[in-house]
Amino acid sequence: MKLEIVTIGTELLLGHTVDTNAAELGRALAAAGAEITRRTTVADRPEAIRSAVAEALERTGFVLTTGGLGPTRDDMTKTVVAELFGKRLVTDAKLLADIEARFRRMGRPMPAINRTQAEVPEGACVLPNPRGTAPGLWIEDARGRVAVLLPGVPREMRGLLVEEVLPRLARRDAGGGAGPPHVVLSRSVRTTGVSESALAERIGEIEAEIAPLTLAYLPSTDGVDLRLTAWGLELGDAERRLAAAAARLKERAGEHCYGEDGADLAAVVLDALRKQRRRLGVAESCTGGMVAERITNIPGSSDTFIGGVVAYADVIKTAALKVPLETIAAHGAVSEETVRAMAEGAQRLFSVDATIAVTGIAGPGGGTPEKPVGTVWLAARVHTDTRALHRVFPGDRDEIRRRSAQAALDLLRRLLAPG
Amino acid sequence: MKLEIVTIGTELLLGHTVDTNAAELGRALAAAGAEITRRTTVADRPEAIRSAVAEALERTGFVLTTGGLGPTRDDMTKTVVAELFGKRLVTDAKLLADIEARFRRMGRPMPAINRTQAEVPEGACVLPNPRGTAPGLWIEDARGRVAVLLPGVPREMRGLLVEEVLPRLARRDAGGGAGPPHVVLSRSVRTTGVSESALAERIGEIEAEIAPLTLAYLPSTDGVDLRLTAWGLELGDAERRLAAAAARLKERAGEHCYGEDGADLAAVVLDALRKQRRRLGVAESCTGGMVAERITNIPGSSDTFIGGVVAYADVIKTAALKVPLETIAAHGAVSEETVRAMAEGAQRLFSVDATIAVTGIAGPGGGTPEKPVGTVWLAARVHTDTRALHRVFPGDRDEIRRRSAQAALDLLRRLLAPG
Repeated sequence: MKLEIVTIGTELLLGHTVDTNAAELGRALAAAGAEITRRTTVADRPEAIRSAVAEALERTGFVLTTGGLGPTRDDMTKTVVAELFGKRLVTDAKLLADIEARFRRMGRPMPAINRTQAEVPEGACVLPNPRGTAPGLWIEDARGRVAVLLPGVPREMRGLLVEEVLPRLARRDAGGGAGPPHVVLSRSVRTTGVSESALAERIGEIEAEIAPLTLAYLPSTDGVDLRLTAWGLELGDAERRLAAAAARLKERAGEHCYGEDGADLAAVVLDALRKQRRRLGVAESCTGGMVAERITNIPGSSDTFIGGVVAYADVIKTAALKVPLETIAAHGAVSEETVRAMAEGAQRLFSVDATIAVTGIAGPGGGTPEKPVGTVWLAARVHTDTRALHRVFPGDRDEIRRRSAQAALDLLRRLLAPG
Repeated sequence: MKLEIVTIGTELLLGHTVDTNAAELGRALAAAGAEITRRTTVADRPEAIRSAVAEALERTGFVLTTGGLGPTRDDMTKTVVAELFGKRLVTDAKLLADIEARFRRMGRPMPAINRTQAEVPEGACVLPNPRGTAPGLWIEDARGRVAVLLPGVPREMRGLLVEEVLPRLARRDAGGGAGPPHVVLSRSVRTTGVSESALAERIGEIEAEIAPLTLAYLPSTDGVDLRLTAWGLELGDAERRLAAAAARLKERAGEHCYGEDGADLAAVVLDALRKQRRRLGVAESCTGGMVAERITNIPGSSDTFIGGVVAYADVIKTAALKVPLETIAAHGAVSEETVRAMAEGAQRLFSVDATIAVTGIAGPGGGTPEKPVGTVWLAARVHTDTRALHRVFPGDRDEIRRRSAQAALDLLRRLLAPG
């Protein structure tokens, strides 16, 4: 099944908002066997919405929109799509009662503007939105054309997608009945600590072997992801081919591979620590809390992660982490000696046997000819074994910090690896 | 000037990558006076790229693409666009020499695949890309149609945009010579700690007063942004109208407003601390380093921010922050008493006069009927004055943590505010 997505919002075109909804929709719909053939973004303007939705319907007969369904005046998608489908707007009694009840609970009179929120295209199916004020809408006509309208607020969009849209798509698929459904399926092998071209050389010319799957190299501050995609194959066939190709890629990527698909290096490290019954503490300078933040972002991390110190000022490196003042004076705060002392100090402070330490120059200021912006010293320590690593990362402050946090986690992963 | 953007990448459609390039391009081009009328995303497939680029050229005559210019096999944009413009690919001698030199520096033979990177559509202008391997391309034909091809790696795209594309656009505009250029310009007023509907009530019916500017309410985990947009006005006129409308919105938003446009609450708080010559330390539990990370993300924060403790395990709350064991036993780790003690403990530990403390239940586990997931206690302390705040935030773990970090920074902002 093919469909197109239209995301609506001037703020998306002007770049004031990053379109995270588009990515979420893509993942969820592809996993459900839908092939998204195109995504179009237009401003909150009736004529722009009209032409984008009309063209998408023309090409695939199925369009899903996000945005333009809010309680404030930028709401217009509903009106435009009703016109396109030749349907008039009618007040939905249940919806009106819900909105009135909500205002009663808040003890406030309902502004007139909220009454229009209860209007829906005649015959449309109202998708209840317990997380927000504007419901989703599923509009279908006699020719079988479908438009699904979802609000733009990510939390509300996500809830409606999972609870209302995907089950309806699955029922449609089952109703079709013409053999097993064909899916678009992807699988990624995640690598870090290796450049795109060095990785390409290790992997070599593999495209012919894995056809009809396709392979893309996707570099980011996390490393390089190897993305395999099966296009329109039968589900079982796609899964088998992807599993075989992923296994081959992992073998060639070797120790640089840390997982598949959405694997987060922080979760990988936590799992390894848990298996070895070790607990973790971190000491950060230039990453300023990013390593701890990544670790605590993982649900359940509290069984393994004890705590962290952001030793931003040198006085905290000496006071909290007991880095000798002479070490910093002799070698500098960004040095192998200091990062090793930080890793040891964190071990004592948190009474743990595994630690990570980071110190570096994230810029834009603070660089010198000997230690330019991007210079980072990393350390991982397990029991009495410390491994330290020097890197000069490219990019701006944010990129340098992200690369540093990922490399620090990776250093501990490699140190914990058996053999 | 109108143009369309085409972003190319199967990973974008499948949602494995969030399209941050699109947002950056939007901001930079709108600021340069270009009106982006549509953005289209298609897969790395020649036929999909061809139709999207051809349609965009048909509508506006000017298209800018990102993606599909890498060193690996997913590179195809160049070939497709050359065909559309009726131009053949020729080897660019300088480009080939550059690529060969790069491999010589790395001491490795150049793979044959890299030779195709030196091919460009005949007559195209090569935009040098010092940050990566694939250059950008500016292709123009006798009918005045333009296609600008940029790589998909954000750092490379950004560099080419700023150094090569925007100056060329400015020269084209100047060459036109028909009166002052008309721009699409936006301005945002940022608020936090207030709901969208409560804010809408404070602001009231302002749309008629500010027309032809448009207003949109944009809620996120940071709060609600009020976005004003001027469409196709003369630059000076647009700036004057936006300034007047923004001033009016700020007045109505009152103490909930913390800045304009890209203002980061962490930077606002650092500025306020700097003015009062105060230094900052933080103590975090559920946010796990996110508050420190946000503060240290601001260049120059090291003059004001001393350090942070991620007191994830209760033992660290007592050991490092000196929260009395009895306080945690009597009231729980997520309580007003504990968060106040954390704020005081951070003050002693870091020898600073301003602190922020956060403790809460980010989920998915750990909730109880009395303290459900999302329950958070926040504190800000300045000198001897502590303000504590209780919140129950909606959303998943990540959203609860983001809302908590923002609310904690906001609590300190309000405490530091004069009066």
